[in-house]
Amino acid sequence: MEYKIALIPGDGIGPEIVREARKVLDAVCSKYGHKFIYSEVLLGGASIDVHGVPLTEEAVETAKASDAVLMGSIGGDAKTSPWYKLEPSRRPEAGLLAIRKALNLFANLRPAYLYQELKAACPLKEEVIGEGFDMIIVRELTGGLYFGERKTVEENGIKTAVDTLSYNENEIRRIAVKAFDIAMKRKKKVTSVDKANVLDSSRLWRKVVEEVAKDYPEVTLEHMLVDNCAMQLVHNPGQFDVILTENMFGDILSDEASMVTGSIGMLSSASLNDTKFGLYEPSHGSAPDIAGQNKANPIATILSAAMMLRYSLDLDREADAVEAAVQKVLTEGYRTGDIMSEGCRPVGTAEMGDLIAAAV
Amino acid sequence: MEYKIALIPGDGIGPEIVREARKVLDAVCSKYGHKFIYSEVLLGGASIDVHGVPLTEEAVETAKASDAVLMGSIGGDAKTSPWYKLEPSRRPEAGLLAIRKALNLFANLRPAYLYQELKAACPLKEEVIGEGFDMIIVRELTGGLYFGERKTVEENGIKTAVDTLSYNENEIRRIAVKAFDIAMKRKKKVTSVDKANVLDSSRLWRKVVEEVAKDYPEVTLEHMLVDNCAMQLVHNPGQFDVILTENMFGDILSDEASMVTGSIGMLSSASLNDTKFGLYEPSHGSAPDIAGQNKANPIATILSAAMMLRYSLDLDREADAVEAAVQKVLTEGYRTGDIMSEGCRPVGTAEMGDLIAAAV
Ligand SMILES: CC(C)[C@H](C(=O)O)[C@@H](O)C(=O)O
Ligand SMILES: CC(C)[C@H](C(=O)O)[C@@H](O)C(=O)O
Repeated sequence: MEYKIALIPGDGIGPEIVREARKVLDAVCSKYGHKFIYSEVLLGGASIDVHGVPLTEEAVETAKASDAVLMGSIGGDAKTSPWYKLEPSRRPEAGLLAIRKALNLFANLRPAYLYQELKAACPLKEEVIGEGFDMIIVRELTGGLYFGERKTVEENGIKTAVDTLSYNENEIRRIAVKAFDIAMKRKKKVTSVDKANVLDSSRLWRKVVEEVAKDYPEVTLEHMLVDNCAMQLVHNPGQFDVILTENMFGDILSDEASMVTGSIGMLSSASLNDTKFGLYEPSHGSAPDIAGQNKANPIATILSAAMMLRYSLDLDREADAVEAAVQKVLTEGYRTGDIMSEGCRPVGTAEMGDLIAAAV
Repeated sequence: MEYKIALIPGDGIGPEIVREARKVLDAVCSKYGHKFIYSEVLLGGASIDVHGVPLTEEAVETAKASDAVLMGSIGGDAKTSPWYKLEPSRRPEAGLLAIRKALNLFANLRPAYLYQELKAACPLKEEVIGEGFDMIIVRELTGGLYFGERKTVEENGIKTAVDTLSYNENEIRRIAVKAFDIAMKRKKKVTSVDKANVLDSSRLWRKVVEEVAKDYPEVTLEHMLVDNCAMQLVHNPGQFDVILTENMFGDILSDEASMVTGSIGMLSSASLNDTKFGLYEPSHGSAPDIAGQNKANPIATILSAAMMLRYSLDLDREADAVEAAVQKVLTEGYRTGDIMSEGCRPVGTAEMGDLIAAAV
């Protein structure tokens, strides 16, 4: 079959990790007789350098005309990069927020699990790890503080800055439905995280989530306050299956969860709308400090490509093959620097990509 | 000397841990010849049960007429307690927020450190612990999403809930000054945490913090995004000295940090205004599940009392004595259940209080 894929190499380590993911996709094509037609899309710093803005209309159109988008990472070093001399609305991150909104990608899925092979990289003690953990964070991605009205005003010489956190029932319902659908294919437990003892938006969140839960009698629903969740992720991450939460809490908790697993270079993510379309990217950032040094771990991007095969292209067998290839290379002991441990075989970005492509 | 102290036993384990802190304060009085005049103040569920509201005008007046407030904890089990059938604004937590605002307690100091004696309780591996960690979180406590306008409106049958995150330059400046003052007495490093790549309020935060930093040339200032900070607390907590942040981020990060230390039953907190006055309480919650069972660890409250002696009453020598007493009892191997480890001597709430009072 033929598929259209938009590639966003982006900034920092983005181009090199996307290159490796593409190698793996090429291997999938030859093995299974597919054809992927790629168009390259500029986003973030890469777009600023060429067009002066972090996202153009054409970029959005190219993405929309594709079956899926595979992205590396965007952004640079805020202290040294000239991009951060620009107005906030013209910086790389603004491009990422704008494309999420333009493509209506309201559902951000971030799996966080402990690879048995990488236990040594997990910061937690054996007894806290217990039988391991495997959770997925379902983060609302187009609402909340990220997209509310904001302004900075001055009165009597004193500036006041205001951001707005707003959610309506429909926005909450559609993300809750995603979370429960996912839970049905997993351990059937949803932990909805909010700050209902303080926020009105959290109280509405809780009410709508309760309503949605009625359609999923097999799923156990639990509510947890965000401060408690930040503790529980360190104390007992094994308790979680699906964590459902709003945009800002999801940003914080998903990063915490990925670090708790110790495998941040391994974790993929998908951002979905109401169709099959999605944008796939690693959970980690653009790591400008190691860009271009053949040090970055391409696995998170390769596993994001596998998610793309599964969710947007309906190629389950092919997705399985990529995941199995990653597993095989890990079992054989190959490691990039970030996940290196004693007795393993050190490889660079390109070698890791070659090994996984060969194993497909 | 004579001092007036308002005691808020509160809910759950609150009364029993405050009782032990008072034992220790009594020991301080007899040893150093002071007189503490206590008035009991109802807050949270305890106030609802008597007055129907979580905080009364008189309670605020009694607190204001004191030199300091020592508090246990407030709140109950949200699933089973009748308090949570009330409107949000009449629940126990609303009382806590209201007293913070009424007393203008804008600076919440939450120390989070690893007790060498309690390394076994720390969830992190030895190599992540490294040389240990000792940080203090300076959280803004009377602004942001906690006290912004909020409303829930309905249009065409769809409800929308809105919360507002607002900070002005003065609010940011006064908390930043506290953080830098504290850093000057410590390792002279401030990590200011925000989400400046998204929020206007964070951009104003960063600007004002930069301005304040100019008055403290000896202090190293670093800015960190909140999602990154949530990761770094797990990855390398030893890098932090003073973390300065706004109300909601501080709520999440301080709970995460305290769990990272493994000693949540040991961590005190102070909430201060612009005078010497302050409210002191343990960092942990009201643990309704173990209330009244002589199981709770009173040390966080006892150390909060020590903070009170130091910050509000200027009794440094007495504060040192309480801290040394806690240290002695730990060194002797006495432990409540939450911090128990092999080879130590298990004690209950009251015994722990007796031991520390005797050691003063
Ligand atoms: C770059 C930034 C705006 C973004 C976010 O906060 O959503 C990133 O942290 C993420 O989680 O994808
Ligand atoms: C009880 C709750 C309102 C409170 C808060 O969020 O501030 C608590 O979590 C805390 O941190 O003191």
